[in-house]
Formats: sequence, structure tokens, C-alpha cells
Amino acid sequence: MGNADLVYPSENEGISHRVEIPPPQPFIKTFQYSLKETFFPDDPLRQFKNQPASRKFILGLQYFLPFLEWAPRYTLQFFKADLIAGITIASLAIPQGISYAKLANLPPILGLYSSFVPPLVYAMMGSSRDLAVGTVAVASLLTASMLGNEVNAAENPSLYLHLAFTATFFAGVFEAALGLLRLGFIVDFLSHATIVGFMAGAATVVCLQQLKGILGLDHFTHGTDVVSVMRSVFSQTHEWRWESGVLGCGFLFFLLITRHFSKKRPRFFWISAMAPLTSVILGSLLVYLTHAEKHGVQVIGNLKKGLNPLSITDLVLVPPHLTTAIKTGIVTGVIALAEGIAVGRSFSMFKNYHIDGNKEMIAFGTMNIVGSFTSCYLTTGPFSRSAVNYNAGCKTAVSNIVMAIAVMFTLLFLTPLFHYTPLVVLSAIIISAMLGLIDYEAAMHLWKVDKFDFVVCMSAYVSVVFGSVEIGLVLAVAISLLRVLLFVARPRTFILGNLPNSNVYRNVEQYQKASSVPGVLILEIDAPIYFANSNYLRERITRWIDDEEDRIKSSGETTLQYVILDMTAVGNIDTSGISMMDEVKKIIERRGLQLVLVNPGGEVMKKLNKSDLIEKIGQQWIYLTVAEAVGACNFMLQTCKPNPAKDESTGTWNNV
Amino acid sequence: MGNADLVYPSENEGISHRVEIPPPQPFIKTFQYSLKETFFPDDPLRQFKNQPASRKFILGLQYFLPFLEWAPRYTLQFFKADLIAGITIASLAIPQGISYAKLANLPPILGLYSSFVPPLVYAMMGSSRDLAVGTVAVASLLTASMLGNEVNAAENPSLYLHLAFTATFFAGVFEAALGLLRLGFIVDFLSHATIVGFMAGAATVVCLQQLKGILGLDHFTHGTDVVSVMRSVFSQTHEWRWESGVLGCGFLFFLLITRHFSKKRPRFFWISAMAPLTSVILGSLLVYLTHAEKHGVQVIGNLKKGLNPLSITDLVLVPPHLTTAIKTGIVTGVIALAEGIAVGRSFSMFKNYHIDGNKEMIAFGTMNIVGSFTSCYLTTGPFSRSAVNYNAGCKTAVSNIVMAIAVMFTLLFLTPLFHYTPLVVLSAIIISAMLGLIDYEAAMHLWKVDKFDFVVCMSAYVSVVFGSVEIGLVLAVAISLLRVLLFVARPRTFILGNLPNSNVYRNVEQYQKASSVPGVLILEIDAPIYFANSNYLRERITRWIDDEEDRIKSSGETTLQYVILDMTAVGNIDTSGISMMDEVKKIIERRGLQLVLVNPGGEVMKKLNKSDLIEKIGQQWIYLTVAEAVGACNFMLQTCKPNPAKDESTGTWNNV
Repeated sequence: MGNADLVYPSENEGISHRVEIPPPQPFIKTFQYSLKETFFPDDPLRQFKNQPASRKFILGLQYFLPFLEWAPRYTLQFFKADLIAGITIASLAIPQGISYAKLANLPPILGLYSSFVPPLVYAMMGSSRDLAVGTVAVASLLTASMLGNEVNAAENPSLYLHLAFTATFFAGVFEAALGLLRLGFIVDFLSHATIVGFMAGAATVVCLQQLKGILGLDHFTHGTDVVSVMRSVFSQTHEWRWESGVLGCGFLFFLLITRHFSKKRPRFFWISAMAPLTSVILGSLLVYLTHAEKHGVQVIGNLKKGLNPLSITDLVLVPPHLTTAIKTGIVTGVIALAEGIAVGRSFSMFKNYHIDGNKEMIAFGTMNIVGSFTSCYLTTGPFSRSAVNYNAGCKTAVSNIVMAIAVMFTLLFLTPLFHYTPLVVLSAIIISAMLGLIDYEAAMHLWKVDKFDFVVCMSAYVSVVFGSVEIGLVLAVAISLLRVLLFVARPRTFILGNLPNSNVYRNVEQYQKASSVPGVLILEIDAPIYFANSNYLRERITRWIDDEEDRIKSSGETTLQYVILDMTAVGNIDTSGISMMDEVKKIIERRGLQLVLVNPGGEVMKKLNKSDLIEKIGQQWIYLTVAEAVGACNFMLQTCKPNPAKDESTGTWNNV
Repeated sequence: MGNADLVYPSENEGISHRVEIPPPQPFIKTFQYSLKETFFPDDPLRQFKNQPASRKFILGLQYFLPFLEWAPRYTLQFFKADLIAGITIASLAIPQGISYAKLANLPPILGLYSSFVPPLVYAMMGSSRDLAVGTVAVASLLTASMLGNEVNAAENPSLYLHLAFTATFFAGVFEAALGLLRLGFIVDFLSHATIVGFMAGAATVVCLQQLKGILGLDHFTHGTDVVSVMRSVFSQTHEWRWESGVLGCGFLFFLLITRHFSKKRPRFFWISAMAPLTSVILGSLLVYLTHAEKHGVQVIGNLKKGLNPLSITDLVLVPPHLTTAIKTGIVTGVIALAEGIAVGRSFSMFKNYHIDGNKEMIAFGTMNIVGSFTSCYLTTGPFSRSAVNYNAGCKTAVSNIVMAIAVMFTLLFLTPLFHYTPLVVLSAIIISAMLGLIDYEAAMHLWKVDKFDFVVCMSAYVSVVFGSVEIGLVLAVAISLLRVLLFVARPRTFILGNLPNSNVYRNVEQYQKASSVPGVLILEIDAPIYFANSNYLRERITRWIDDEEDRIKSSGETTLQYVILDMTAVGNIDTSGISMMDEVKKIIERRGLQLVLVNPGGEVMKKLNKSDLIEKIGQQWIYLTVAEAVGACNFMLQTCKPNPAKDESTGTWNNV
């Protein structure tokens, strides 16, 4: 034990405690614990504990069909609220559905189909009370761009349509699988910054695409990037239709004004909610009365009457298009999921109820699988529609059922009314919805708070706008992950100093008043010690010691004798890290210094112990607090002569 | 400020300090600092500081040509040591070079060429004194398997050869670029565990491949996995040659015995170092005398006399094979680099001198670029040869020059002697070298210390043996990265308790004696709060509170009033993390509890401040130490009534 009997008598801390090695656990137990923390952090089986079997069965049923939980307690008062909310969102869903279906290069009627079946499924299975189900612009655009690379929607509309159903099917399967396998945390890797940038980029791209409708152009690029869109627009200036342009700008102005008004006075939320339907009605009337469809204003044309036809036999489950369908499904599915989960979570925060992310994924997945069998394409919980639902005072998912019934009524009886609806109105509706997604305030906030997040956000934006939606997504996720890896690969290390008149030691950069202890260098390592950073940490610690010795040499203070490593923030260590610690110990000792460890955590102590490094370092050089370690060092400095092993020669040649 | 005047008078800590926000830094300065830490952690420009321009120039030259540093001080004594070491490694290099070239499906003479030019280049540029340059088995195998997928070496040997030069060229360019761009840390992502598993797997595969030579088979699979090799061996049992088998097993036995002996008595290292050359000489004599080449024992045949021919004009820099060459170059280059850097670093640790990883990469890169111009294929610093060099007492890189001269002599005069060398001896040499790479003790150590590293190691091994070398590499790196991501995605959270008779608070799992404080829940978060874990942490903190309230309910203690989050180990926070903290605050307050933060680091304080979260939480609820925070909470608990906002109802319906 050598110096063990020279243990410093702790003054300030009462009884001196040793750093303990946590009691050994059987491997299977720690493994189970890790599995549980990884896949069941929310402890979903909590309420099943200590319940009789029958109760467990009911709870299990309620887990997958949450409506069983609230339906028995449903009241007439709730229904009144849900009825109003449902009708409000239906008036938004009908024009938006038609618009977004056009955006996805799908028949407009699909937008209505998709607002009928999926909301019914969600009402049974979803656990959010505020989410309104429907199609979304970004996923529609992604569908168009990804499937469009494989099949031309104009040349082969039926194959394109079938591929869209297939992609929806796989999106549903993927979503449900994520939920069932409890892998919902994959969605967490789309950080807030990524989503802000990505959504703004996608919205910009979608708005630019609407120039086709606003200017009444027949031919347009299939590319989504700003360069090809602009080239497409300005290469055919002679084709621009002023009638179309005037109509579009007029309606856009109307929509933006109402939106602005409703934003200022939230009580009048219904004004902006009704505006799209009003525009559609006004636009259709205008065209019908002026016969503008004969003067260059394109209209929707015939919409088939009747409910969703079955499409289960249309799924394309054979090569060569299968891969594209699966890819499209996974990408659009995860994007849709991210939006839906975020929306559900936000509103549950407002109203203080709990949303289970994995359960929601199963609901979204089932809704899309059923949807793909009944001529629907990808649906999720769009933010705008859910916000209207919330503002309209919805109480439960019944508002989705009301909306579905309203859409059913439209499908059965009202489709002919959309014959004269000008496409330019749909473009105006899309632009007005998309402008709300460009959240420049959020981007400013990112810049203010966290520059790296801003970089992530801007790279997502720029690469969506100038590259493609997929590139933007991949790049933003990659940069976000790079940040996590960089945090581990280049952990911060700090010098700690003593705060005056206390036994607290803190980072000298943060606490200007903290002062260093003569003869002792105290370093804090701020990350787990892993293979990815063990080489860096070795070099960095060496450099801290070099710097400190240089400083001491120039100032003529006491020579350095002790290096204290505060391991409080080192959450874990792997075998590369263990080797690194061993090397650092050797490097420090070769310079005639003594390594002292402070407060290694349970995992770290366990591994230091198993690899016999505790014995090498010496149990007596591991302290519970920095204050104790410094006390011991000072005690040694005062009672003992300087360490005789101290070797001042630093030439590179002396060991040859 | 509300409760601010009720600040707890700190008893134990002397003057009470506040958590400080680090002084604001201009963005450009923090950015520069981050860049420096990321790319120049070893501060290579340190010695250039405050030097006159002429000295800077010399230092710069010495940086790229380290021999300028030691050459002036070179003595005759050093030379004697280097001469012995050089001749020893040459006797190992010649048979190994020929063997590994056969393994790469290249003409055997390339093995000799590759032991001539690259060592000379390394002697000028390398900073290791112990590294012996040469080809390695794993990279040779990888070259054979990756190029073999594109071009059949037997059918089109000249194209195959040219592609090997091209791959070597790109490996060199890639290595030098990593060094010049200071991206050497990419090599760190090959963790120790990955390398142990990967090397053992590759060694197994290489050994199995040698069954071809040992059994004297003419036809053999191109696959490297155990299944196709075994099928290939046992489908042609009638082709097995007993003469070849007996010879092979005999020599293998001889090589293993000498290796075992030298391992036991390190003084006799030269016995195992000389054994391969002895085997070659004995084998050749035996074949020459018995004319065994006519009885099914395959021999090397003619080797061209003369030094390396130029191959710069043979590089294939046009499609369609360019991509394969680049891919092969990068993969083999990074593997070779990892081995070379690790070897250089290990020996520099023994002898206590410094190795600059990035500088070494430039040396390796240049050596391979020059090599690719002069008919060499990929070289690095193999462990076995460097260990022999070290044991033989080498002093400087001059031992590499001696080896190169010995090889040159062989090339000029001795190649005809290898005509009768039986291939089976080469196989025995390879097997005996490879068995040393299967480090089962290291694997056992991994199992003992770190189960996750063991999993990484075994997946690398299994996927190399049953899949392919590339798959194994990618998988092992992916699993290692997954671990880093999991660490961040699922950080540990602990309950802290008070150690008896002290004001130290530690994890109750590690310290069995630590006791909880009534009415206060103290949690420690053990990782940065990032997008990848913010949802998890919110759920996990909620669950800790649930568990604590359940426990209190059943035990009838004081109700929970305060939740203290110890942020000491939270190194950083991003905007998603900030939102999470905001949500956690709301959740905690909605339950009628008070959130208290302890010791947020500099980065965290900066961002909490910029996002105005400090004000929302209240400056008075942020303490420097857990002890102070607990003291303040106890003070409040004793002086104030329980928080009136406390709301015990937990039904899910009450807010509808």
C-alpha cells in the first residue's frame, strides 16, 4: 500500500468516505436493466402490476384501443364540443385534401378518401385528444418526387397510383413496426433544429412549385430544387396567364389576411379555418359564372361520386418497383410520424395528459395500412389542422369521426360541386398553408441559443431548397449525429480551482474567482471515456500538464507534484478508456508526478476494479471529493519531501 | 423574485457562491477554440512559438522529415544495434513478403519489392524508432478479395497487378490526406475491441485459405468465408496431396515450436525470427534434392532478378475499374493505418518518446504513393516484424534502411535460390504468423471488463469469418458507434443520497450507506442533454417522480416537495434539451413540486441564460452544490407550509 498510512485526516467533511465499488450484480440483471431502459423507459407495464388477470386483459385491450377507456365516460356536452370542432376541421380538410393530392400528382379525389377512412381508425386507436388526421404537404411532395423518379404520373397514372398505395402500405407497416418493437426513439434523431430547417425548406420548395398553378403553366419541371423550378418558370414567360395570376394572387391575399386576423384574435380562429372552403366556393362560382375555364383558368374537372373503392388488390408487391415503394414508404412514413408525434405531444403538454409515443406509432401505422387498402395515401396528424381542432374546442377523437362523416357526405353527394374549382385556388391554399411552416423566428432563436443547431437547421434548409428533400433530410440527420459523436470524440476538459472560503472546486473559466492550488493540477473530464476519445484525452491531459509546467516555470511557483482527475462527469468507460487511463498513469509517473482520481462513478469503479487498475493506481489515491484529494495532496506536500522520482529532463533523446 | 429572500443561510460551505454564467466570448473566439480542439488537440505548433523565422523553417523541415532531427546525433554504437536489428528483420521480411504477396494473388517478387522502397521512405519521414515497414497479411487478403470481385487474377494478371498498384496509390493518397487534414482521429473509431475481433477473424480466414497450399489443391474458392472454404476443401478430398500435407505440417510444427520457445525466453527472439528463413532454405533444399516438385509439391518457380521496375505508368486512372481501386485503396489504407499507428504508439509508450499520429499518417501515405510508383503494394508497420525489430535492439529507423539494403542484395543476386521453395512452406509461415493474431486472451479480458466491447469484438469476428472482411469491419464500427449513440440516447440517471455525517451526496446504488432526504428527490443526469435523449429524459424523470411518490405513499413519509436535478455531469445542452427542461419544469410544477438545479456547467448556464430559462426557473433555485440545495429545501420545508399548489389528483380525465 506504500503511502496508505499517510492518509490525510479529513477536516471539513466529517467522516471521510471511500469511493465505493458498487455491489456486484449478476450479468443477466444488468442486461435486463439496460434492455428495459432502452426499450421501455416509460414503463408501460406499470399499471399492469398486481392486477387480476381479467383486469389485465381489459387494460391490454385499452392499450391498443384507447377509445375503450374514454367511450364509457363520454357525455353529450363533450359531443357538442366535438361536433363543432369536427365540422370546422372538415371545412379545412376538404380543400386541403384536394390540394395536397394534386401536389402528390394523385387524383384529387384521393385527398377526400384519405380524410374519410384514416380518421375513423385513429379515433379508435389514437391516444391524442386533439390530433386531426389528414394528409400533409411535405409527405405529398416527397411521394411525388420519389415515385416520380421511377414512374411518370402523367404517362402511367394507374401504375403511379398503385405505387402510391404500396408506399402508404409500407409506411404503415414501418410505423407500426417501430411502435411494436418499441423503437420509437428513432424518431427522436430528427432533432427540433432538423425539423425546423427541413420543414421550412420543404415549404419553400412547395411554394415555388405552386408557381405552376398560379401562372397557369401546362409544362413544368419534375425537379424540386429552386434552380430547375426557376428555370422552368422563366423559360416560358410567354405562357404565363394573367387571368390565372390575378385570381391566384387575389385568393392568396384573402387567405393571408384571414390567417393574420385569426392569429391576432384567437377567438376568431374559425375565420381562417373557413377561409379555404370559402375560397373554393367563391372561385368555383366565379369560374362557373364567367366561363373562365375557357380562358386559360384550369379547373379540377370531374370528381367521381361515391365512397372509397377497395385498393387492397392494387398493391404492387413484386419487383421491379417494389424497392422504390418500400423506400418511399419508409422515408415518408418517418417524416409523417415525426410530425404526428410532435403534434400529439405538444397538445398533450398543453392539456396535461400523457401520450405514449410507441402506442401512437401503432395507431398511425394501422391507420395507414387500412388506408392503403381503401384508396387512401399517406396520412398523419398535420399541425395546422390539429391546431384548428384544438382551438375549436375539441374534447376527444370524436371530432375526427365527425370530420369523417362530413367528408363521407361530401363524397356521396357534393363532388360535382368541385367541377369548376380553379386549380389556382388550390395553389393559393397550399402557399398560404406553407408560409406558416417557414418559422424564421425559430431559426433566429436557434442562432441565439445554439450556433450548432442553427448550422444543422440551415444545412437542412439549403440542401432541401438547392438539392432535394431526401438529401436535406439525410444531411441534417448526419450533421446532428456528427454533433453527438463530436461531443464524445472531443470532450471538454477543464482546470478546476478553489472557490474562495469554501471547499468547492469549479471550472476556472466559468468561475473567475476560483484560484488554483499550488503544486496540484485539477482536471475535470466531461464525457465518458470511450475508444473515440481515449487518444484525444491522453494527448489533451498531457498538454494540460505541459501548459501548467510551462506556466509554473515562468512564474517560479512550487513545482507540480499532483495531477487530480475529477471523474464525476465520466459516466462510463470502455476497454480502450481503461488502457488510456493506464497510459496516462504511466506518462504522469514518468514525469515524476502522482495521479489522483476523484469520485469515479459506479460503472467506472466497476471496470477499474475488474481490470485491476485500482490496484495499480492505488486505492489510497482515489478520493470521494476534490476537496479531500487536495487536502491529502497538501498534507503530503507539507510532510514529505518532493517526490524523488521527479525527473526534470524532457529531451527526446534520453531514453534511446 | 418571489421566494428569493428566503435564501438558505449556508452553514457548511463558508461563503455561499452562486452558479456563474461564464463571461460572454465573441463567437469567433469560441469557434476558433472548438476548431483547435477538434483538429489540433496535440498543439503541434507549440514549439514554433516565439522562434525566429530561420528556426521555424528548420523545425518545419524536421516536422516532415524527422530523420533531420536525429541524423546529426547518430553514433556508431547506434549503427551496430541497428545493423543487427536490420539483418534480423530482413530474414523475416523476405519469406513473409513472398508469402503475403501470394496471399494477395500478386507475383511473389512484389513482396520483395515492397520491402525495399517503402522502408527507405519511412526511414526519412517516420517518427517511430521501432517500426519495421512491410506488407501485412490482412491487407493482402483484403486486396485479393476486393480486387478479385472485379478482375480475376488468374485470367487477367496484368490488369489485376495494375489495379493493385492503383489501390496502393489511393491508399497512400487517402492516408496522407488524413494526416494533412488532421483527420487522424477517424482511425480512433476503430476501437481496440473492433481490432481484436477483426484481426482474429481475418487471421482465421487467412489460415483457412492456407488449406489450399497445405493440401496442395489446384482449384480453390475465391470466397473468404468459412462456409465456402470448407466446401471447397471437402468437395475435393480426392485431390489432397499427402506429400504436401506432411511437409506443411512439419514446417508448421517447427515454426510454432520456435515461436513458443522464443516467447518463453525473450533473449532468444532471434530463433523465431530466423525460423521462417530457415524453413524456406530447408524446404527448398529438400525439394531440390528429392525433386518433390514433380510429385505434387508446388514451388514458387522463377523470380525475376533486378530491382523494382517503375510502375507509375501502370496506374489505372480511368473508369470502369477506377471506383474499385479507390474503394479498395481506402479500405485497405485505413486498416493498414490503424495497425501501423497502433504499433508505433505502443512501442513509443515502452521507450517513452512521442509519436504524432498525423505525422505518421503523412509518412505512411508518402511511402505508399512512392511505393505504388515503384511496383510495390500496400505496406504499413506490421506488429510481428516491429516486435522483432524492438527485441533485436533497434535504435532508430536505420534498421529499416539496413533491411532495405539486405532485400536489395537479395533482389540483385539471390532470387534464383527461391526457385525450388515449396508453396507449402509459405503457407506454414503464414499460418504460424496468423495464429499469433488470434488473441483469445484479449477477448477474455474484454468479456471480464466490458461485455459490450466483447459483443463488438465477437460480432467483428463472426461476421469476418462467416460473412466477409468488409462486412465485419463495417459491422464492428457500426456497433461501436451505436454504443456511443446509445450512451447519449439513453443516459443513466441516478438517485442521490446523503452519505452519513457529511454533506456529500452520491448515487445510492453505488453507496449503500447513502440515505435519501425526506421530501426531496435528488436526481443526477449523466450525459449531455441532446435531441437524441431529451424525450427519454423527460419520461425517465417523470418515472422517477412517480416511483418516489408511490414509495412515499406506501411508507407514509413526508410528501415530496422538491425535485433537485444535479447537472454536474451534463456537459452540454442543445435547443431540444432546453425545450425539454422547460417541459420538465412545467410537469414538475403541475404536480405541485419545485424544480431545483444544481451546478450547471458553463455551456449549460450560457444556454439556459440565452433562452431565458434561468429566469423562468428562478435564479434562486439554482445552487452550486447539492448540499446547499438540500439545505435550502429543508429550510423552506421547516419554515413554510406545504406548497398550496400541490395537486394530488392523478386521473387522466380531470383536465378535459
